[in-house]
Amino acid sequence: MNVLIVLGHLCRGSFNAALAETAAAELNRLTHPVRTVDLYAAEFEPRLGRGDFASEKTEGWLDITREQARAFREGSIPSDVRENVELLRWADALILQFPIWWFGPPAIIKGWMDRVFLPGFAYGRGRSFDTGGFLGKRALLSVTADPPATAYACDGRFGVVDAILWPLHLTLRYVGFDVLPPFVAYDINASAEHRSAILLEFERRLTRITNDAPMSFRPNADYDAQFRLKVPQ
Amino acid sequence: MNVLIVLGHLCRGSFNAALAETAAAELNRLTHPVRTVDLYAAEFEPRLGRGDFASEKTEGWLDITREQARAFREGSIPSDVRENVELLRWADALILQFPIWWFGPPAIIKGWMDRVFLPGFAYGRGRSFDTGGFLGKRALLSVTADPPATAYACDGRFGVVDAILWPLHLTLRYVGFDVLPPFVAYDINASAEHRSAILLEFERRLTRITNDAPMSFRPNADYDAQFRLKVPQ
Repeated sequence: MNVLIVLGHLCRGSFNAALAETAAAELNRLTHPVRTVDLYAAEFEPRLGRGDFASEKTEGWLDITREQARAFREGSIPSDVRENVELLRWADALILQFPIWWFGPPAIIKGWMDRVFLPGFAYGRGRSFDTGGFLGKRALLSVTADPPATAYACDGRFGVVDAILWPLHLTLRYVGFDVLPPFVAYDINASAEHRSAILLEFERRLTRITNDAPMSFRPNADYDAQFRLKVPQ
Repeated sequence: MNVLIVLGHLCRGSFNAALAETAAAELNRLTHPVRTVDLYAAEFEPRLGRGDFASEKTEGWLDITREQARAFREGSIPSDVRENVELLRWADALILQFPIWWFGPPAIIKGWMDRVFLPGFAYGRGRSFDTGGFLGKRALLSVTADPPATAYACDGRFGVVDAILWPLHLTLRYVGFDVLPPFVAYDINASAEHRSAILLEFERRLTRITNDAPMSFRPNADYDAQFRLKVPQ
C-alpha cells in the first residue's frame, strides 16, 4: 500500500516531525512504500488564488469551483498543486500529520486541502462521499495537542476531540476516502518518556492501517436532491 | 462600538465582499466606526513561521508559544501581525466574513488566527475564556455556503452547521470574545434575488449586534487543573 504523509509543522525537530518519521520508518518496515511532503520545507502556498485558475482575469468575480475544474481539465494548475495531485494519485493511503492550532489544522494544511482537493479530481459532477474521487483510498489524521486527554472529553474544557476534528473528517469522506479513526497525541509537552510512549503507540497503530475499520458515513443514495435524509431514523 | 471586519475571499466582486460592504455601510449608518481588513488584497501571509518569532534560530525545534509570546513582549512581531493587533485593540466587535471551504475557513482566515491571536495578547498566563484577552468584545462569524440550508441540518448531508463552526466558536471564546450566533447565508448561487434578500437580512441582523445575547460557555472556575468539569451535570 503506497502511503503519502503530509506534514504541517514548521520545525524539523518537532514532535510532529518525529511522528512523521516514525510513520515512514514503520510503514517501510511493513513493506509499504512511503512518500512524505513537508509543506513548510516546500514553502507550500496555502492561499487559493488567481494563480490557481486558467482565467486571464486579474480582477472581479470568478466562479471559483468552475475555474478550478477548468484549470485541472486543461492542465494549467500550478506546479506545486500538480505535484500533490500526482502524489495523491500514487497514494493508497494518506496520513495528515499536524499540531492542533486553534482547534483546527495549521493554515498550511487547510490551504493544501483548499488547493489540491480539486473539482474534477477529488470530487465533482455528482461524485462525492461513496462516489468521491479518492474512493478506495484510506485517510488518517495524526494530530498533537498540548492539553491532556481530559480536556478533550465530554466533560472536558474543549469537548470531545471528534467534534474538533469533524470538519476535517467530513472533508476527507466528501472526497471519497475511507476515514480511519484519528490518532491523537495529548499532553505532548509532559515529558520525553511520554513522547517516546506515544511514538511506540503510533507504530502499533500503523500495523493496523490496512485493516482498521473506517468511520461510518451514509451513502449519497440516502439523501434527496436537497441533501435531506430520505428516511429519518 | 468600533467594528473590525476581516474578509477572507479572493474576489472583490464576490458575494462575501458584498456582505462585508453591506455590513460596513449598515454599521456606519448605525454610527459605529468600521474598519475592514481584506486579507487577500493585503496579501496576508497565513503561515505561522520563523519570521513571527524573536529567535535567531533558523533551524531546529522552537517552543512556538513561548517564541510568539516573547516576540509580542519584545515588540518584534512582523508588521502585518502588528497592524492586526492594533486593529483588534481598537475594535469592540469583530466580524469574520468568509466562504465555507471544506467545512472550514479559507486558509487565509485560519492563518490570521494562527498569527494574530498571540499569547500575551489574546490569551496566556492563565487568561482564557472568561478571562481571555478580548473580554468584553463581541465576535460574529458571517459565512456563506453553496448548498441549501437543508444540507446543514440534523438530517442533512453535512450535519448541523453549529458542528461545522464549533472549532471557530471555541477559538473565539477561548480568547475571550462574547460569541454571537453566526450569520449563515445558504444557497448563495440560487439567484440574484436570493442574494439581495440575504443582504437585507444581514442588515437587519446587524442592527442587533450590540444587543444579541452571546452563546453560552462555562467559566474557567467550573474546571479543574486537568480541564475536567468539577461537577458533571
